[in-house]
Amino acid sequence: MTRSLQEIAAFVQARILGDASLQVIGVASIAAASAGDLVFVEDEKNLPPALASKAAAVIVGSFAGVHQTSKPLLIADQPRLAFARAAEFLIPVDSFHPGVHATAVVHANTKLGKNVQVGERVVIHDNVEIGQGSFIAAGCVIGPNVSVGRDCRLYPNVTIYPATRLGDRVTVHAGAVLGSDGFGYVRDKTTGKYHKFPQIGRLEIEDDVEIGANSTVDRGALDTTRIARGTKIDNLVHVGHNVQIGENVVIAAQTGLSGSAVVEDSVIIGGQVGIADHVRIESGAILGAQSGIPSKKIIRGKGVVFWGTPARPIAEYLKELAVLARLTKKKT
Amino acid sequence: MTRSLQEIAAFVQARILGDASLQVIGVASIAAASAGDLVFVEDEKNLPPALASKAAAVIVGSFAGVHQTSKPLLIADQPRLAFARAAEFLIPVDSFHPGVHATAVVHANTKLGKNVQVGERVVIHDNVEIGQGSFIAAGCVIGPNVSVGRDCRLYPNVTIYPATRLGDRVTVHAGAVLGSDGFGYVRDKTTGKYHKFPQIGRLEIEDDVEIGANSTVDRGALDTTRIARGTKIDNLVHVGHNVQIGENVVIAAQTGLSGSAVVEDSVIIGGQVGIADHVRIESGAILGAQSGIPSKKIIRGKGVVFWGTPARPIAEYLKELAVLARLTKKKT
Amino acid sequence: MTRSLQEIAAFVQARILGDASLQVIGVASIAAASAGDLVFVEDEKNLPPALASKAAAVIVGSFAGVHQTSKPLLIADQPRLAFARAAEFLIPVDSFHPGVHATAVVHANTKLGKNVQVGERVVIHDNVEIGQGSFIAAGCVIGPNVSVGRDCRLYPNVTIYPATRLGDRVTVHAGAVLGSDGFGYVRDKTTGKYHKFPQIGRLEIEDDVEIGANSTVDRGALDTTRIARGTKIDNLVHVGHNVQIGENVVIAAQTGLSGSAVVEDSVIIGGQVGIADHVRIESGAILGAQSGIPSKKIIRGKGVVFWGTPARPIAEYLKELAVLARLTKKKT
Repeated sequence: MTRSLQEIAAFVQARILGDASLQVIGVASIAAASAGDLVFVEDEKNLPPALASKAAAVIVGSFAGVHQTSKPLLIADQPRLAFARAAEFLIPVDSFHPGVHATAVVHANTKLGKNVQVGERVVIHDNVEIGQGSFIAAGCVIGPNVSVGRDCRLYPNVTIYPATRLGDRVTVHAGAVLGSDGFGYVRDKTTGKYHKFPQIGRLEIEDDVEIGANSTVDRGALDTTRIARGTKIDNLVHVGHNVQIGENVVIAAQTGLSGSAVVEDSVIIGGQVGIADHVRIESGAILGAQSGIPSKKIIRGKGVVFWGTPARPIAEYLKELAVLARLTKKKT
Repeated sequence: MTRSLQEIAAFVQARILGDASLQVIGVASIAAASAGDLVFVEDEKNLPPALASKAAAVIVGSFAGVHQTSKPLLIADQPRLAFARAAEFLIPVDSFHPGVHATAVVHANTKLGKNVQVGERVVIHDNVEIGQGSFIAAGCVIGPNVSVGRDCRLYPNVTIYPATRLGDRVTVHAGAVLGSDGFGYVRDKTTGKYHKFPQIGRLEIEDDVEIGANSTVDRGALDTTRIARGTKIDNLVHVGHNVQIGENVVIAAQTGLSGSAVVEDSVIIGGQVGIADHVRIESGAILGAQSGIPSKKIIRGKGVVFWGTPARPIAEYLKELAVLARLTKKKT
Repeated sequence: MTRSLQEIAAFVQARILGDASLQVIGVASIAAASAGDLVFVEDEKNLPPALASKAAAVIVGSFAGVHQTSKPLLIADQPRLAFARAAEFLIPVDSFHPGVHATAVVHANTKLGKNVQVGERVVIHDNVEIGQGSFIAAGCVIGPNVSVGRDCRLYPNVTIYPATRLGDRVTVHAGAVLGSDGFGYVRDKTTGKYHKFPQIGRLEIEDDVEIGANSTVDRGALDTTRIARGTKIDNLVHVGHNVQIGENVVIAAQTGLSGSAVVEDSVIIGGQVGIADHVRIESGAILGAQSGIPSKKIIRGKGVVFWGTPARPIAEYLKELAVLARLTKKKT
């Protein structure tokens, strides 16, 4: 899609220095930019290569206002954000063909909104609702009584268990499993055998959530697992039953959240973090990669980074490592 | 399904206090219970809210015998277990329609038992046997020479490699992969290239095993990978080639077992645990979340909890952490 | 397939002691060998049981030259390698039926090479190229503009996102996802909401790469994620956007590589290792299981094993553990 700098600047709320009528067709890294691309610069030292690149124009912080350039600049408070939003504006969602493919199997009482696309070999069970503009890619299997909101994207081979609810603009990457049974058993003390604790609750995912490839999110045992709006989850993440995740939380790859853990709003969780059952991570805390939070623990501290297993404030953890290294040298 | 307290008490071996003819239709948490639901109480302090809830009746430990209540009670030695078994009794397995869906592809020489359900778009290759009452959900792919026992449930998009064998009442959640090639290569010292070591063994899974969503279990290299009866495996778990897992083992999410590891009966393994090759975890040991067991190590101790990497008895590990914290404070 | 010892010895470059005309049909472990099987011995103490087994012949190191045996021996410099190569020679790739299955959906402008097999319910989107002799198993979904080389094997239910490129002889195990969106967002400081950073780059996988079941490899954000020739990746591994992996790298199960990490040639990475963003692992380094490499760190040392989080040379790490254990005993 071709857009003028003027249109882009209006959309991303930037100020133009240079020819506002210039047409732009895409975004790129500085190294790969070709004519017609927008690039961005957050760090002043990257401005000269950006200006020397083939890019049509540069999104840049206010520090650039003083430079004399032949290339048009879009001056933005948050240049990386402006670049991301310009990309949303410029790059069309990939090929979209409303309609139900002939090889899809759609069972009874399904309600499809306007302009829904149901891809090849999709299976949709009874009483499913799919909101306007949503795209269900090839090979997805959607269980009975599921509800999917508007403008969602389910990539290929996603499985959704019965009665799961997705809000609007939810994106689910390939192979993810939503609403599977939680891991709950009761051991019979006399026989030593495990009996399944009922896993009959639900999963609710709110608006604007994104879930990575091959991640798994279990439904509640008796109640509901919930992921609130705006939260972003990477690949191969595990979310256990009854977990409650707040708004605008970010969870990197291969992290696991055990049953009934609570993660409040705006928490940032690194990769391969382990969160045990009934843990509470309070609003705004940051968990470093591979850290581990033991059962029932509360982590508190807006903007504080925690690290290690058991996780402690990173300053403490680094001091411990330094002390240990010193002692080790002494003993040698 | 509606059942009388009398029928439920007989099934779960509980004693009734109150109206045995009362009809019950489901199970629920205390908070969510509505009329007709059973709830349970393990901890005496939860009895008052249970009695105040809308639930029809309460499964409870013998401590409750002295209470005067208007709500019927089911007194059980293991109330959580009785609740789990009551749920088995009350809640029908989800929608089941025996027969082979028209969109399934079933190759030659397949033997399907009575009342088998083969879902939409399932692919079953040559010489597969599926026992009576089993359900293969949409999108599963079952390789040649696989055998699946009775009353198994394979959720959507499961892949089973050739010659894998599942016992009876095995449950496999969506996206799991059973019988894939193990990770074995031989490096040619002269060229530096890796050649694949043959991965031509088998995978055998015994009765009553449950395997979580998107978990992967490799077949043996030359011999057999085996998971014994009653073992429960959570989501995103990796089981390497030639691994031997005993009976009634519990393995939480994202744990990995490397090639030729042996896990004996009744071991409990937390989430994100790493077990290296040729490790042996002896019967009844407990591995805390994120712990790591180095190559060839033997872990011994019924009921002993191990933690850390390399894993050591938890008392030792906690003492080390305390000493380190103390030293760190001193040095500051 | 039946082959004479003569043919095998020529293929694997071994020297025959005994009857070169003997026919062999398979490979096996010493314990499971039956008549017609080849076995191998690396460690001299395993030679007697190998000779006592039912195997037809034994591949063995040069130490065996002095033994008097009735069983033919194949003397090789690298007996395990010779065994692996003998298996390649003896064991046919599993059932292969060139052609496009009637239930596959193949969109426009697809170029299929000679003897390609497209399995049941495969979906191939527009402008895909698949090289001669490649096998796309049941349930795979291949996005538009993807190119797959010669003699590749994609196991069931693999998803490939648009514009991904695979070289020749690439093997991808069931459920793997290639080319998914990277995990990149920009937080709007004023609203607290995350906006998706464009994830529009590509994924390139070179010749002879193998990728394990349910692993996920993200495409570049603006540029390209690349896995170089001969690299082997186990199950449930996560490779983030813009990662560059060199040749003949080995990565064990459940390891994660964050965005823009660089792994040079011949690195060996254990299971559950966490590699943060912009890390560089230099050629020939070895990362022990569960180790963690913090952001932007460089790991250097051919043949040096690193362990722990943050990873340090293993000798150092073990010394630290020893000092800590000693101190703990003292204080008790």
